[in-house]
Formats: sequence, C-alpha cells, structure tokens
Amino acid sequence: MEIPENYKVLFLQGGASTQFAMVPLNLFRNTRKADYVLTGAWAKKAASEAARFGEVRIVASSEDNNFSSIPPLDPESFSQNADYFHITTNNTIYGTRFNLIPDTGSVPLVADMSSNILSERYDVTQFGLIYAGAQKNIAPAGLTIVIIRENLIGHALDITPTMLSYNTHAEKDSLFNTPPCYCIYIAKLTFEWIQDKGGVQAIEEVNREKARSLYDFLDNSKMFSSTVNPEHRSLMNITFTLPSEELTKKCIKEASDVGLVTLKGHRSVGGMRASIYNAMPLEGVKTLVEFLKTFEKANG
Amino acid sequence: MEIPENYKVLFLQGGASTQFAMVPLNLFRNTRKADYVLTGAWAKKAASEAARFGEVRIVASSEDNNFSSIPPLDPESFSQNADYFHITTNNTIYGTRFNLIPDTGSVPLVADMSSNILSERYDVTQFGLIYAGAQKNIAPAGLTIVIIRENLIGHALDITPTMLSYNTHAEKDSLFNTPPCYCIYIAKLTFEWIQDKGGVQAIEEVNREKARSLYDFLDNSKMFSSTVNPEHRSLMNITFTLPSEELTKKCIKEASDVGLVTLKGHRSVGGMRASIYNAMPLEGVKTLVEFLKTFEKANG
Repeated sequence: MEIPENYKVLFLQGGASTQFAMVPLNLFRNTRKADYVLTGAWAKKAASEAARFGEVRIVASSEDNNFSSIPPLDPESFSQNADYFHITTNNTIYGTRFNLIPDTGSVPLVADMSSNILSERYDVTQFGLIYAGAQKNIAPAGLTIVIIRENLIGHALDITPTMLSYNTHAEKDSLFNTPPCYCIYIAKLTFEWIQDKGGVQAIEEVNREKARSLYDFLDNSKMFSSTVNPEHRSLMNITFTLPSEELTKKCIKEASDVGLVTLKGHRSVGGMRASIYNAMPLEGVKTLVEFLKTFEKANG
Repeated sequence: MEIPENYKVLFLQGGASTQFAMVPLNLFRNTRKADYVLTGAWAKKAASEAARFGEVRIVASSEDNNFSSIPPLDPESFSQNADYFHITTNNTIYGTRFNLIPDTGSVPLVADMSSNILSERYDVTQFGLIYAGAQKNIAPAGLTIVIIRENLIGHALDITPTMLSYNTHAEKDSLFNTPPCYCIYIAKLTFEWIQDKGGVQAIEEVNREKARSLYDFLDNSKMFSSTVNPEHRSLMNITFTLPSEELTKKCIKEASDVGLVTLKGHRSVGGMRASIYNAMPLEGVKTLVEFLKTFEKANG
C-alpha cells in the first residue's frame, strides 16, 4: 500500500467505532452533509453516528436483501455538495466486498477498511480518508490506523474533543498522547511480515487463492451454498449455508472437534462463516474444504 | 481497592487525555460548572479541555511555586453548585501527591489517578469518579480504567460522541466495542499479582518503604535534595536536584552506565526523577540509594 506524499498516516488509540464520530466531526467542514452507502451493520452504525452531527443521506442500501450484495451505485445520485462520501469496503457479517471503488469526483471518499486493509491492493489516491481498526489484519485491538489526505486535516467542528481531532495527532506525529505502544510494535512486526512475503500484492494473490478454493467448493456443492452475489464476495469473510439448522449445528460441532473453530455465522445471518484474514494460511482453508467435502459425503 | 455496590468499573480504550473530555461531556449535567485544582501539567490540560464544554473555575493552583506542593484547599471557596470537583492525586512531573483527599460534600469528586492507582489504599466512596490510564501501575498503554458512581451515568451532553459516553460502555459491561483485549489480559495478571502480594495494603507498605529510603537519603545528603514540600511528596515519582547542571548530567550518565536508567527529570523542572511505580521492587530503590551515596562521596 503506497502512501502518496500528500497523505498522513496516523496511529490512534481505539477502534473503528471512534472513527464513526471522528469522520463527521473532522470532515463536516462546509455543508455538514455526507453520503453513506449501507452495506451492513457497521456501515449503519457509522451513518447513524454521523447523523448526530450533520445531515446524512443514504445514497444506496442493500438492507432489503439482508446485505447479501453491494447495492448498485449511480454517480448521478451522489450529492454534489457533500463534505464526504462513506463506504465500508468489506462487510464481515455478510461476507460482501466492494469490487469497484466508486468515483466520487471532488467529494472526498471515506472508507472503513477495518476488515480488509492490507488484504488486497488499493490506490490510496482514490480516497480522502481510510480508517481501519487494527484487530483483523494488523495488530491486537486498541489501535486504529488512519490514512488521511492532508488538506482534510484542520477543519474539526468546535465541539470536537481534542483527542478526536485528526489535527491534534497529525501535528504531533501520533505522539500527542501515550500511544498504544504494544499494538504499534505488533503492527511493525506485521508490516515486516507482509514485506517479507512480497508485499500486499503477494498477500492479495494468496488471499484470492484462499477464497477461490472455498468458493469453488461451495459453488459445486449440493449441501453448502454461498448466499452472496458472486460479484461482491468477500476475500476475508466467507459466509455459507446448509439446508437445515440441524445440519448447520452438526457441521459446526464436528468441525470444532477437529480444531476448525469459530465457524458459526453471525446471529443476524445464521449459517456458517469462515473468516480467513491475512494470518490464515492457504493450508488452513484447504483443510476446511477437505473437512466440508467429507462432511457432505457422510451426511448427503 | 474495594468497589462499592453502587459503582461500576469500566475498561475503556485510550488514555487519560480522552477522559479529560469524557468527564465534562458526561458530568456537566446541571450547571455546566466545575472546580479544578491545578497541581501540574496534566491537571491544567484536564481543566482546559473541560473549559471547552462548560465553565471551569480554578479553586487553587500551585503553579506559582512550579507545582512543588499541593496548594492549600479551603472548602469555603468550593463552588456549591458545581457539577463536579476535579483533582489529580499524583503529579508525575513534579513528584507531588495529595496527602488529604478534599471533602467536597455533595459535589462529586473526580480524580485522575493515572499515576498512583493501586499504589496505596483509597476509599472509593469519597469519589464520584476515578479514572486512570493503565500504563503506570496496571497494563500497557491503550486502556483506561474508570470507576464511576452509578448515579453519574446517563447524563451525557447531546454533543457527546457515542464512544465517549460512559452510558454506552456501562450498558454493555465495557463490551460495546472490541475492547483492548491484550491490555485487559495483562491487567488481570497485574491484579492477580497484587492479590498474591497481599493486596493494595501490602503494596502500599512496600511503596512507603521504597519512598522513605530514598527521601531519607535525600534529606540527609549535602549534595542531593528534594524540592518538594515534605507533606506532599509522591510515593511514585521522586524528584530531586543537585547543585549544578554539570553534576546532574554526570550523575545521570554514571547511573545509566550501571543500569540505573530514565533518571532524568522532566525538562520543565530539571534535576533528576526516580519513577518507582508498583513494578519497582524495594531492592531497585536500595540499589539507587547506594549508587547516589557513592556518587556523593566521590564528587562531594
């Protein structure tokens, strides 16, 4: 992930939920209007927090189909005078992902990349601001990384607490307060690990291979199926269903017995979910696919 | 430290600087007025952040003597209608500490205990709210512990970001967001260590013995001296001076050569400072005293 010269990287305490407030508090600098795309529970939380500080317009939502796809986006419908446009690039609960980054013209694009930062290449110049809680692909919970275009710094609303102003941290190179040192140290080790592996491009190739092997199985299975629109399938969180609740429980239980754990789907969608972040090797996914094949044969 | 039934303990992300805003945002529930005692740089920062959201009155300050004592407090001068009264129990830079906790009557007393929580016994019922960044006596930076009387929860100002409302975290038992898990795990180990040692009372005895051995030396030395009013001397941060800048530098250098490090005083007070938090054993302090004695003999 190349950081252009006119961007700053900030290492902040806390998680994405704090950014849900920091983004509007810092970016509502002209019209106090923002466009949000609703692609899941986190996007909704981000939008409703922003609505406390300004006018939020939902330009598109896939809530009608329980967020099983990314809604179609019509640039004609984007607000021309919004202070920013917000998306969530990957949606952990539903297993979806933006396959195309919308072109928002002169309106800064803000992305919550908490669950897929550093999992695939992104062109930072397409964004005004990227934020990501560290706990998926970077470091233990308690650290958030913000990549912000410098001209978006320094416009915080008067009501912004000092610690929630990007300017506070940009001016002191993230050392205004005692930073979450341990998390930052682990982040450094993770960045070095990514470099050793060949950079984000190489990581992305592995992630695509991991996802492909699981989706290929699902698409060819008579028992398991992906409910996500093929165009919008996540590389990080692969959600899938079985024909019955009973079979789902049995599968999760037997998987757990052989060490394949945390495969239960989020309660709002049911089914199963394999979260295969950067730290999960290809072998782990292959082991899961083999297990699912065996389970299908035994229970089909 | 006993937690009374009508108090809640919250495990929050971030450090004391975030509390500087959370305290006024949550406690300015009636008059939007607060009393602050200025005993150092952190107390000043807390007061100036609160002044952004309401009316702050400085009831006492020791800035005139460069914070080398706790200023005398006259309860007659306390605001009767303040929403809260704020103190910083221990002041790391200056080496001072409140030896008496003021009685603020029906006005809730708020204490920043970041640098001496769990170092000595406190009666929680004397306080409406205690907050402490974890990084001195509890866990790595990135976690703040808040002990709050329940009737102070639920009155946040409308402009309060969701993540900065105590109610958000109290309602979800500190699990509203992904908490800083690693810090919380280390906090658990620290709490167990304190219990194994015999609880806070036993820790306090060791801390008093540690401080006594260093202050006794300073008071009897012809070269080193404590500049802090004896009544207000910190048990955690012991500041002292030498007759010249040259001798100070020499002493810090030679100490470092034998493994006694980070003894340089904060730039705003000069001299030397020994931070002897809970993790520093009595033996460490004795080694320092022996070194200082030898240095005095060689350079006196």
